[in-house]
Amino acid sequence: MKKTDLLVIGGSAGGILSATTARKAYGDIDITIIRDTEKVMVPCGIPYIFGTLHDTNKNVIPDAGILEANINLIIDRVVKVDREAKRVTTEGGETIEYKKLVLATGSLPIIPTFIPGYDLENIYGVLKNQNYLNGVLEKVNGAENVAVIGGGFIGVEFAEQMRILGKNVTLIELADACLWQAFDKSFTDEIEASLKENGIKLLTGTKVTKFIGDKAVEAVELANGEQIPADLVILGLGVKPNAELAKEAGLPINARGAIVVDQYTRTNDPDIFAVGDCSEKRCYFTGQDAPVLLASTAAMEAKIAGSNAFQLRLVRANKGTISAFSTQIFGRTYAAAGLTEARARQEGFSMMVGEFTTMDRHPGSLPGAQKTTIKLMFSKCSGVILGAQISGGEAVGEMINILSLAIQKGTTATELNTFQVATHPLLSASPIAYPINAAAMNAIASNCRHLNEGLEI
Amino acid sequence: MKKTDLLVIGGSAGGILSATTARKAYGDIDITIIRDTEKVMVPCGIPYIFGTLHDTNKNVIPDAGILEANINLIIDRVVKVDREAKRVTTEGGETIEYKKLVLATGSLPIIPTFIPGYDLENIYGVLKNQNYLNGVLEKVNGAENVAVIGGGFIGVEFAEQMRILGKNVTLIELADACLWQAFDKSFTDEIEASLKENGIKLLTGTKVTKFIGDKAVEAVELANGEQIPADLVILGLGVKPNAELAKEAGLPINARGAIVVDQYTRTNDPDIFAVGDCSEKRCYFTGQDAPVLLASTAAMEAKIAGSNAFQLRLVRANKGTISAFSTQIFGRTYAAAGLTEARARQEGFSMMVGEFTTMDRHPGSLPGAQKTTIKLMFSKCSGVILGAQISGGEAVGEMINILSLAIQKGTTATELNTFQVATHPLLSASPIAYPINAAAMNAIASNCRHLNEGLEI
Repeated sequence: MKKTDLLVIGGSAGGILSATTARKAYGDIDITIIRDTEKVMVPCGIPYIFGTLHDTNKNVIPDAGILEANINLIIDRVVKVDREAKRVTTEGGETIEYKKLVLATGSLPIIPTFIPGYDLENIYGVLKNQNYLNGVLEKVNGAENVAVIGGGFIGVEFAEQMRILGKNVTLIELADACLWQAFDKSFTDEIEASLKENGIKLLTGTKVTKFIGDKAVEAVELANGEQIPADLVILGLGVKPNAELAKEAGLPINARGAIVVDQYTRTNDPDIFAVGDCSEKRCYFTGQDAPVLLASTAAMEAKIAGSNAFQLRLVRANKGTISAFSTQIFGRTYAAAGLTEARARQEGFSMMVGEFTTMDRHPGSLPGAQKTTIKLMFSKCSGVILGAQISGGEAVGEMINILSLAIQKGTTATELNTFQVATHPLLSASPIAYPINAAAMNAIASNCRHLNEGLEI
Repeated sequence: MKKTDLLVIGGSAGGILSATTARKAYGDIDITIIRDTEKVMVPCGIPYIFGTLHDTNKNVIPDAGILEANINLIIDRVVKVDREAKRVTTEGGETIEYKKLVLATGSLPIIPTFIPGYDLENIYGVLKNQNYLNGVLEKVNGAENVAVIGGGFIGVEFAEQMRILGKNVTLIELADACLWQAFDKSFTDEIEASLKENGIKLLTGTKVTKFIGDKAVEAVELANGEQIPADLVILGLGVKPNAELAKEAGLPINARGAIVVDQYTRTNDPDIFAVGDCSEKRCYFTGQDAPVLLASTAAMEAKIAGSNAFQLRLVRANKGTISAFSTQIFGRTYAAAGLTEARARQEGFSMMVGEFTTMDRHPGSLPGAQKTTIKLMFSKCSGVILGAQISGGEAVGEMINILSLAIQKGTTATELNTFQVATHPLLSASPIAYPINAAAMNAIASNCRHLNEGLEI
């Protein structure tokens, strides 16, 4: 029987960071990661295996960080957690005793078993498993007509990469717009225009009723009876928590199938933590259930678990997920954090909204200059930021994180209007038109007109 | 005699934003900008006129923003401010009455009159004036050997642009390192290595004692007697406040020659504000005099002046300059905000420091991936961030502004360790190794080892 101080089940972002953080926090203790695959795929890198990397081996999370931190690595599958004895047993017949346990068992793609024909050949969910993805990669090479079902981030990114490979791509989304969970209409309009301009057949507000084919899929049937030829189908319908182990161990699971945790990522067993896709997510702004499963959220939770494993050191650290996203589609960057305007209105927030468009170089005549468009939403009365959306050049991938921090620090519109920034001709908008400052000013201006009533100038 | 509600003297970042902000804040009032040049140069764009734009007309701040905001624009020079009558008179013989006045008269380059030969031909300070710069541009075309005196941002950027044009460039800095005011040694070492690799002759710790030449400059003489051939000399010795008008109007001027202002950018005349390079700057961390003259600082002050001109609306908004910089040198980006470690130690801050290096794509095998190196400094006891330095790809230009905001919101190391970020394979480091999170963790780890003493695991 093996013994370890901290046992982590799962080898992706949440698992790795739980272990390496505990090493930094607690020094010379015994830490073990157990995972069920030889190599671990970079989860958000998976779409780029197809049109950019062309090799799953180029999309591997290196083990160097784990090994350098002197963390034991076991490749095996845990089949049971015995909470009373504080030990796990594995498929390979091992027993490992733990003092503290972190569950980072991730998620599984949703397979639409409710659609007839879902089990035909050449229909693939996005499983984060190298062997499986090697199989998909092989099929992609021969495919001509690709249908992507689901217009969330994974669906849009797969559609873009398949199109870059020259396939005939149809992207089918049930809702009225792609990426509607992250962006408001002016942004989804821009994204959809780009998808179409680049030759993707985009069908929004469209329901898939059937997969047609004999052995392998040949077409996708829509609710209106139309048939879209498809020799390869990618399912981007989202993921569900992989919480079987926890459930069998009797840990509380919420209605969505995720492990229930507190602000310190603790389950109701004081010696068991859960982080990442397998654990419960809450909305930062309301505390409600928020099924937003992101590697960066997992990373944040893992740092809390790793630091707090043996002593609560990071206090009240996890207020919930702020849903910070970024992506690049046909060379343009789109990013969002916090609530969309639509979602915030649904929740009942009173809002002031500021928008602004400028160039990301100054002067705008400099080579490589691109348009940046930003939208910021603030609580009208308390002034704090609720959400942000940006489109523009590559640096938007970091610009959104200024707003990610702003949200987490309860920053107000007046603070964002005047906060000092570094600007440079080759790197940013002009200081006169720095997008965050300017959009915040526009939001304030829309809300402060009454201050001028009766003011004598 | 003209009359206006708000008169702004100066047409660069500080002047423009004071006027446009007042328009947004106060609605339909009469606003006038008066400036002494037909066109306004983008100040930080000036080095890029030479190696990149090749035309001063491509480096002009457009008037569209002023005109669209229905702001009166007068091209003339104010020669006197009569505070009692609340009016100014101009070189062109006009008199303009104001209710509120904003001085945004900027700065002038320091000319080293203490160095013999400073007034030879082909020695140029960086005057922000189109006609003057056209003259420099013409001389640059014929020049072969260029000496740049001063290794601050302007000096380094000029040296890089002159080298891109194929000139023999010598960069001479009195201190031990280029850019030492913004970066600590590990960063200035990287920058200096890049300058040398790209063929710039770099002389640090070197004093210029004489400019040699008959009518025009032919060489620069150093303290050790060496003569550096130079048919063109660029002076990057910094700037001094242009506060003559204010001084003549009897407004208090500080020891450095800058107009004294309060947190609301008000001079001691309740109807006169001063913003940008002509006004006093204070260090954000100590409140001491801090001669850091940046367009982005001017922009922040202008927004305060514009919003507060007729009523104090942005409360306690200007705590001081955080010295946020970014630049790009031979394709690599360098950025800093807050105090350097050296400066913070001089001030007596007790510190914890965290450093981290990673790739700015994940997996690192993706095309365009570059190394990012970051250093963060925190107050050891209170935990709040004091400074940040980063080198890496283009997105570092925005990443530094996450830290700019963090400084201005008093963010702690534990908050920066776990704050949620958007990450994407094509746009950022992995969520497992997001540089700000990771460097903050390293700082905490260096400071928390004592927590493990006596802890039973």
